[in-house]
Amino acid sequence: MSGNTFGTLFTVTSFGESHGPAIGCVVDGCPPGLALCEADIQAELDRRKPGTSRHVTQRREPDTVEILSGVFEGKTTGTPIGLLIRNQDQRSKDYGNIADTFRPGHADYAYTQKYGFRDYRGGGRSSARETAVRVAAGAIARKWLHERFGVAIRGWMSALGPIEIPFVSADAIDGNAFFAPNSAIVPELEAYMDKLRKSLDSVGAKITVTATGVPPGWGEPVYDRLDAEIAYAMMGINAVKGVEIGAGFDSVAQKGSEHGDEMTPQGFATNHAGGVLGGISTGQEIVVNMAIKPTSSIAQSRRSINRQGEAIEVATEGRHDPCVGIRATPIAEAMLALVLMDHALRHRAQCGDVLCATPRIPGKIA
Amino acid sequence: MSGNTFGTLFTVTSFGESHGPAIGCVVDGCPPGLALCEADIQAELDRRKPGTSRHVTQRREPDTVEILSGVFEGKTTGTPIGLLIRNQDQRSKDYGNIADTFRPGHADYAYTQKYGFRDYRGGGRSSARETAVRVAAGAIARKWLHERFGVAIRGWMSALGPIEIPFVSADAIDGNAFFAPNSAIVPELEAYMDKLRKSLDSVGAKITVTATGVPPGWGEPVYDRLDAEIAYAMMGINAVKGVEIGAGFDSVAQKGSEHGDEMTPQGFATNHAGGVLGGISTGQEIVVNMAIKPTSSIAQSRRSINRQGEAIEVATEGRHDPCVGIRATPIAEAMLALVLMDHALRHRAQCGDVLCATPRIPGKIA
Amino acid sequence: MSGNTFGTLFTVTSFGESHGPAIGCVVDGCPPGLALCEADIQAELDRRKPGTSRHVTQRREPDTVEILSGVFEGKTTGTPIGLLIRNQDQRSKDYGNIADTFRPGHADYAYTQKYGFRDYRGGGRSSARETAVRVAAGAIARKWLHERFGVAIRGWMSALGPIEIPFVSADAIDGNAFFAPNSAIVPELEAYMDKLRKSLDSVGAKITVTATGVPPGWGEPVYDRLDAEIAYAMMGINAVKGVEIGAGFDSVAQKGSEHGDEMTPQGFATNHAGGVLGGISTGQEIVVNMAIKPTSSIAQSRRSINRQGEAIEVATEGRHDPCVGIRATPIAEAMLALVLMDHALRHRAQCGDVLCATPRIPGKIA
Amino acid sequence: MSGNTFGTLFTVTSFGESHGPAIGCVVDGCPPGLALCEADIQAELDRRKPGTSRHVTQRREPDTVEILSGVFEGKTTGTPIGLLIRNQDQRSKDYGNIADTFRPGHADYAYTQKYGFRDYRGGGRSSARETAVRVAAGAIARKWLHERFGVAIRGWMSALGPIEIPFVSADAIDGNAFFAPNSAIVPELEAYMDKLRKSLDSVGAKITVTATGVPPGWGEPVYDRLDAEIAYAMMGINAVKGVEIGAGFDSVAQKGSEHGDEMTPQGFATNHAGGVLGGISTGQEIVVNMAIKPTSSIAQSRRSINRQGEAIEVATEGRHDPCVGIRATPIAEAMLALVLMDHALRHRAQCGDVLCATPRIPGKIA
Repeated sequence: MSGNTFGTLFTVTSFGESHGPAIGCVVDGCPPGLALCEADIQAELDRRKPGTSRHVTQRREPDTVEILSGVFEGKTTGTPIGLLIRNQDQRSKDYGNIADTFRPGHADYAYTQKYGFRDYRGGGRSSARETAVRVAAGAIARKWLHERFGVAIRGWMSALGPIEIPFVSADAIDGNAFFAPNSAIVPELEAYMDKLRKSLDSVGAKITVTATGVPPGWGEPVYDRLDAEIAYAMMGINAVKGVEIGAGFDSVAQKGSEHGDEMTPQGFATNHAGGVLGGISTGQEIVVNMAIKPTSSIAQSRRSINRQGEAIEVATEGRHDPCVGIRATPIAEAMLALVLMDHALRHRAQCGDVLCATPRIPGKIA
Repeated sequence: MSGNTFGTLFTVTSFGESHGPAIGCVVDGCPPGLALCEADIQAELDRRKPGTSRHVTQRREPDTVEILSGVFEGKTTGTPIGLLIRNQDQRSKDYGNIADTFRPGHADYAYTQKYGFRDYRGGGRSSARETAVRVAAGAIARKWLHERFGVAIRGWMSALGPIEIPFVSADAIDGNAFFAPNSAIVPELEAYMDKLRKSLDSVGAKITVTATGVPPGWGEPVYDRLDAEIAYAMMGINAVKGVEIGAGFDSVAQKGSEHGDEMTPQGFATNHAGGVLGGISTGQEIVVNMAIKPTSSIAQSRRSINRQGEAIEVATEGRHDPCVGIRATPIAEAMLALVLMDHALRHRAQCGDVLCATPRIPGKIA
Repeated sequence: MSGNTFGTLFTVTSFGESHGPAIGCVVDGCPPGLALCEADIQAELDRRKPGTSRHVTQRREPDTVEILSGVFEGKTTGTPIGLLIRNQDQRSKDYGNIADTFRPGHADYAYTQKYGFRDYRGGGRSSARETAVRVAAGAIARKWLHERFGVAIRGWMSALGPIEIPFVSADAIDGNAFFAPNSAIVPELEAYMDKLRKSLDSVGAKITVTATGVPPGWGEPVYDRLDAEIAYAMMGINAVKGVEIGAGFDSVAQKGSEHGDEMTPQGFATNHAGGVLGGISTGQEIVVNMAIKPTSSIAQSRRSINRQGEAIEVATEGRHDPCVGIRATPIAEAMLALVLMDHALRHRAQCGDVLCATPRIPGKIA
Repeated sequence: MSGNTFGTLFTVTSFGESHGPAIGCVVDGCPPGLALCEADIQAELDRRKPGTSRHVTQRREPDTVEILSGVFEGKTTGTPIGLLIRNQDQRSKDYGNIADTFRPGHADYAYTQKYGFRDYRGGGRSSARETAVRVAAGAIARKWLHERFGVAIRGWMSALGPIEIPFVSADAIDGNAFFAPNSAIVPELEAYMDKLRKSLDSVGAKITVTATGVPPGWGEPVYDRLDAEIAYAMMGINAVKGVEIGAGFDSVAQKGSEHGDEMTPQGFATNHAGGVLGGISTGQEIVVNMAIKPTSSIAQSRRSINRQGEAIEVATEGRHDPCVGIRATPIAEAMLALVLMDHALRHRAQCGDVLCATPRIPGKIA
């Protein structure tokens, strides 16, 4: 109820603050027999970790994960998997000056209102540092989904501030600091970021994440729809302000004769639905877009108040990402993996018998 | 786990199909002592019910609600509130012809893949008819939120297909068939809809819903953020394909110096956050937008397949809303009420002691 | 959170008061394709219903169940099953005199302390009338467990007050008003009850419930153990004060060399465990005992207080079971069915792949 | 759903195996502002830890706890509290010989059936070693309950095998290795245990746990009754086979005129209910008894099977408690604290407004 557990059957229970001794989580509900080692998880953590380019925070965290339980002789046992990541590079003194003040656009104020006080060091629990455990847990879900069903999850940056990033090739994504599916545009992105940093400002971004190989039938009516839980997962990522499935907001101006994806024995003719109908997967590619707001912690001086409610000026020191969207791609991929894994288990719980009766509908489409 | 219960502490467990004998729900967790009668609920149901204008489905349903439990001598007792709405105007024969076929853009196909077969009468469980119980349950949450905290929830249509609807006055909203906050534009909307029906097509819409009077401190980090659960609630409404909080997708191109709402002793200077920071309410107005796709059931002939996977043409008979967005406003209001009610209870469970220590931060802003 | 939903994957959400218009529930998570009609449920309700002998309450309730949803063309669809039972024979006036007083040993006082006031008519929500919906929901679980796995659930009265009831034959159970597995002892039980009623008193009972055919591997470490959830289910039945699994309290004085059930290729040599080890089923018969306290509502005059905290004498009028244990057998069977059904689904969610690899251990024992 | 999280609003999510690198948990839902340090938790862990007398396992574990999150400047922040206990004294080689066999009365067999294989080192996840984290989490609940409500929780051994232990004085409990509330009987208990060890056998025990100062009104009808969740909590402790509330199984032979506790303006006249009526606390002392079976791992040779289903003889080497009941008292106290804490939060979530209106019923009894 306190909002630190994600999922229903495949659950991630997260703990840890930005400047505490460690962050970590308990992953429960993983099926037994999955081959798993720390390297499987570390590979994903390394894609998200800070300090990898001049365009992200310079905090140095190796984000080394330790598996504390749930794996025996290289395989998951079906018991909970404890994951631990020690914090290495806290500089809490950078934050002393904001202990008593609230940064515009930051969770400082809301946390203080909720809890009466807050751990102000690096944003405490509200810091995006917590997303490292989502990536770690997501790596487990991702491995199982791929081995068991051939599900492939892939995300990228589709806009950096005002710059739209046309999709050219998935191969380009891991070849640049922005997860841009387009090598040619990278110099423009770098120039934009260099100028942005000099202006002591930050900017938003748009991320797209997709999944292929998802079998039809995953998702639950009427509230826990697959798209509803994807929206919950993505809007739950720090700084996300909008989520779209398939055609998203373009659906507003579409006609039914355009939006409704026709079906043929060879498959769907289009994918405005983004792979979900009635909250349940159709077997098409799942397509999700999300809007990420600009970092709230900037070095420009801005109007705010202090704990006494008095007017002050605040400029945020310390190390921050000028565009939190840059590191959001691995996080979004992880969250999609967690949602899909949960629904894979939910589906076989209720419909395990239906699953044995295949094919339910003949032809490629099924 | 099967997705028919909404909420954590204030829960709505829904049942019923479009053409079954009844729909209804169990509302659990309502605090004792709330004055409640059927008229309180009926008033909201009447705003959503079908057949109220030529622009919506002509199915005639009085949507009369019966309170079966949880209320004694006019007050809620703290025990579960059973709500029942009998279906009156089924015409199942209209649907015999789609029993074996799948409508493009409809849940027919996904349900059949998930469950192995489906109740095809009027869409069965996938029909938006189920949203009547959300409105009924939401009416209870809404009444409690208003009486206990003065929360006021208000929604409207902000676009009908390609037509943007500028906000003029809240007073206009209940004065037209579209929930448009703008009387002058109504003739244009009516002309558009009349033309649309003649073309045997359907169209999308954009809905905005807001809440004022929400105290600061509601919402849970890190997964059950208030905005994440709003996204889950709205994306869980039939036909919704996108959700925005505050600046939403406009955040992508914004700078931090623009997006981050400055604070003064007199309050926030702007509201790009849409009333939520770090997943927790700030006390500002909560602002949500959603995109609603065009109705999938249209009378035009379209390509599809049947259960045998063979190519067919399908044109949908029966009574359908040419724009499901028209009746979505009361549903979106109800879902926002349910999310806020749930978080009101969650907040006092964990922070009940903090709540007694007021003001936490001096001045108007707190 | 308000305690009216039972189960995790197969859930029963209950509503209704003793003297309200109706009681009922929503059963969610039932697999699709189960043949189900009202007669399947009614048969179990008839075993529990009041007024069937002079030894139980004379309230006349047909307890006729209506299926409102989730079944189409005689089969469950996988969507929630709404069940409704109208109350027929309320006599609320019988209870006016206790509106302001508390019965010794009754929930009156605790409910008033919790909620601030209560629906006093026939005990309102605290009445065992609510258990009718457990029996109705249990009938669905029981049918699925039997058809899918051959699980057979059977309960009986093993003691009526001071009278131990030796198990003679299961065939006798439904042949008498007490669910006694022993026809010869029935006259003694009837004589005891006739004398008890004349003395205006009530008495306790002991119920035993068993399940055969449960596959090994159902149950979850470490908190949701199968035995822990059975204890929760049984202690949650009105008037139950104690629960035992297998040897139960006899285990206290046993040696490990006696209690630990030896295993052979032909099966287990004994069953002190009662079919559960480490919280997980072993494939042996599950054996549960429960203690049921005497009815608190008796016609003898007893010391109590009123809402003003003043000393009073109270004697309870109205119609009551002199031994609530007599009708408890079908309820206990239903609760065991609900727990087993839930764990059957939980098992295949996490271990669905293991299940396909059979036999895991060769020989009869597996 | 995989059963490693305890509680609804105050949750403990546990991980770790007996011979893995560490055990630990995440405690979520703790109210902010509670003074908390590692010493508060360590004190309870030290009461449970192994190796403190010749009558328990000789495994040497300091059970040193580290708080990883959720505490800032000596106070809980309202965010999740991560707790870590490193394992120090594994001797996995002791267990190589049971990798392929099943111990009579042990979870070995059930785990293998459920998961397909198991971590056999020291029982892996099924080991009572996991209960250390329950004690750690319980220490937090216990401190909050005492500071906020004055709740005092106390447990003791009420029988060791065939030896009943009359309650003499609570002061004696922590003065002996058995948690016996009776110093005079300790020599008899020691003699019994010395003889038992020589016989290479184990024995059961009976534990009693109580809570005073619990306000009336905690608990939820109809399924999550306070007594039902206590039964779930206690039956979920390794080796527990029976649970009683108040009069427990003595209720079977009681008359209503004896069992029903009379009320006076000065309070209840008796406490057969054990402090719970209708599943809700009455303000009286909560009284719980539990039966603990004898340790299944004994050095005597017994009949069993191996993974191939072949008949074998097994005698368990390694270090084991000859009576697991001896160390069960702190565990039972912790579980009662966890249940009460959860219901304290649940109560104020739903009935927070009622709580402000006191006294609900005048006089000492309220």
